[in-house]
Amino acid sequence: MYRIGIDLGGTNIAVGIVDEAQRIIAASDAPTVSQNGAGALLNDIAATVNDALARGGLALRDCAGAGIGVPGTCDTARGIVRYAHNIGWDGVPVTAELRQRLGLPTFLANDADCAALGEVVGGAAKGCGSALMVTLGTGVGGGFIVNGRIWSGHGGLGGEFGHMCIEMDGAECSCGQRGCWEAYASATALIRQADSAAKAHPESALNTTVLNGRTIYDAAASGDETARAVTARYAEYVGVGLVNFINALFPEVVLLGGGVSGAGEALLASVRAYVAAHAFVRETALLPEIRAAALGGDAGIIGAAALVH
Amino acid sequence: MYRIGIDLGGTNIAVGIVDEAQRIIAASDAPTVSQNGAGALLNDIAATVNDALARGGLALRDCAGAGIGVPGTCDTARGIVRYAHNIGWDGVPVTAELRQRLGLPTFLANDADCAALGEVVGGAAKGCGSALMVTLGTGVGGGFIVNGRIWSGHGGLGGEFGHMCIEMDGAECSCGQRGCWEAYASATALIRQADSAAKAHPESALNTTVLNGRTIYDAAASGDETARAVTARYAEYVGVGLVNFINALFPEVVLLGGGVSGAGEALLASVRAYVAAHAFVRETALLPEIRAAALGGDAGIIGAAALVH
Repeated sequence: MYRIGIDLGGTNIAVGIVDEAQRIIAASDAPTVSQNGAGALLNDIAATVNDALARGGLALRDCAGAGIGVPGTCDTARGIVRYAHNIGWDGVPVTAELRQRLGLPTFLANDADCAALGEVVGGAAKGCGSALMVTLGTGVGGGFIVNGRIWSGHGGLGGEFGHMCIEMDGAECSCGQRGCWEAYASATALIRQADSAAKAHPESALNTTVLNGRTIYDAAASGDETARAVTARYAEYVGVGLVNFINALFPEVVLLGGGVSGAGEALLASVRAYVAAHAFVRETALLPEIRAAALGGDAGIIGAAALVH
Repeated sequence: MYRIGIDLGGTNIAVGIVDEAQRIIAASDAPTVSQNGAGALLNDIAATVNDALARGGLALRDCAGAGIGVPGTCDTARGIVRYAHNIGWDGVPVTAELRQRLGLPTFLANDADCAALGEVVGGAAKGCGSALMVTLGTGVGGGFIVNGRIWSGHGGLGGEFGHMCIEMDGAECSCGQRGCWEAYASATALIRQADSAAKAHPESALNTTVLNGRTIYDAAASGDETARAVTARYAEYVGVGLVNFINALFPEVVLLGGGVSGAGEALLASVRAYVAAHAFVRETALLPEIRAAALGGDAGIIGAAALVH
């Protein structure tokens, strides 16, 4: 049987039909239009599902069920989106609504959790019973898989990995608190750190480029001392949060995703070195492997499909 | 059927026979003598089990199995204690050894994890699917229960809740790192904070007593300004770590145990206020309840017995 994976984003609805080898064998997408209300958007989602099936020469009866990842706080047990600010949802009973439209068993989870699950069932953490996936993007997000299942907290209220305080009374965070990991380890924070370093070092190549994760790591790779110092310190910021979760939760593997993870080994090697030097477990061979996420945008679809059971 | 719970500590072996209502119906204990090797200590444990059974008028055949909590790093899946420094154990196959001596199915977990599980099956978190128990003692320990089961990390290597960095480049910790939660929120840290405040404030009653968790909270209760400032700041240190775990893991309930938790509401109320003001979830009614652990020393026995399945 096939399963339907739906990754509902703030700008796009992405649907994939996933086979038992965790491959997307047919797909479709559509823009996310939220201003006409949840019912209209759910209709668009159902239409996109039907389009993906048609492209694969399949019908709903070929599928065991559908899973959907939503960018918000999800009460997965009850199938309700508590709130998803991007799309204006508040208390939407998504699984019941989709079941009505598709006539299939339907399951719900947060989109970042779906991405983590996708990497576990078919990506960089394939075969692992536990994994922590951390996304270094505009903010710092994450998903935690334990005993093969998403753990998003009681009532789905957890998963705010970026809002761990790593510096009491530290840098201001967009959430209103101080010292959050996100305020140091997000792409936004990296750019701010590079901007500040560039101003202090007029000779740096960082002054001659638009700053983003790629250009900062490129400048470091070219030997720019200021960029090297920025990326070295940034790896420590990423590392300190990973050490915290490794010490407490010790997942089998840690995955880094999001824009900054595109820096690849330049980021991973220095993060691994920090973790090896600071983790409570001193035997490096026992520590969780730290890897780049592998599935990119497909992770959310594959993970959403994996919710079907 | 009854289950046997064994709490192996650095100074005592405590055994209880636990009924289906999670009550200890018979018990025995003996000193922990570790210098004659693991085999001799395991013999003592088996003898203590038999003594507890005799006191209850029971036999091994009345029991479904035995669980043991050990103060160290436990590979629960394989039933092996990786290391337990207090008792000099290194790679001891505890479940196989005890099964041989008792002729019953035998299960293993870390002692702090057993205490957390005990509180979930029969104590302050009874009926909760998830719980975080934090012990404020010489160090800061903890146990995390998720979907009704202990999660101690891959290979049992996690659970080091006290070694979460809350202040990069902060106070030195006994583990060799800096800024660990334990260096701020343990009983040891509270005493150090009170000692330092007492020296700066010669008029404080803290100068006229032996400092420990109880005397510091007693001085605060009597209106000593210095003690009040110390306990207020200490609640923030406890709170910041709890907020970190609540934001990420959002257990249904948080329990505080260990010596300092004896301060009761004087500690709990200020910790709750900090968490309500700093947690990512802004609706206080949705936050996990923060309660004192209820079972004291029995938690480890009841939780060890609950490992039997």
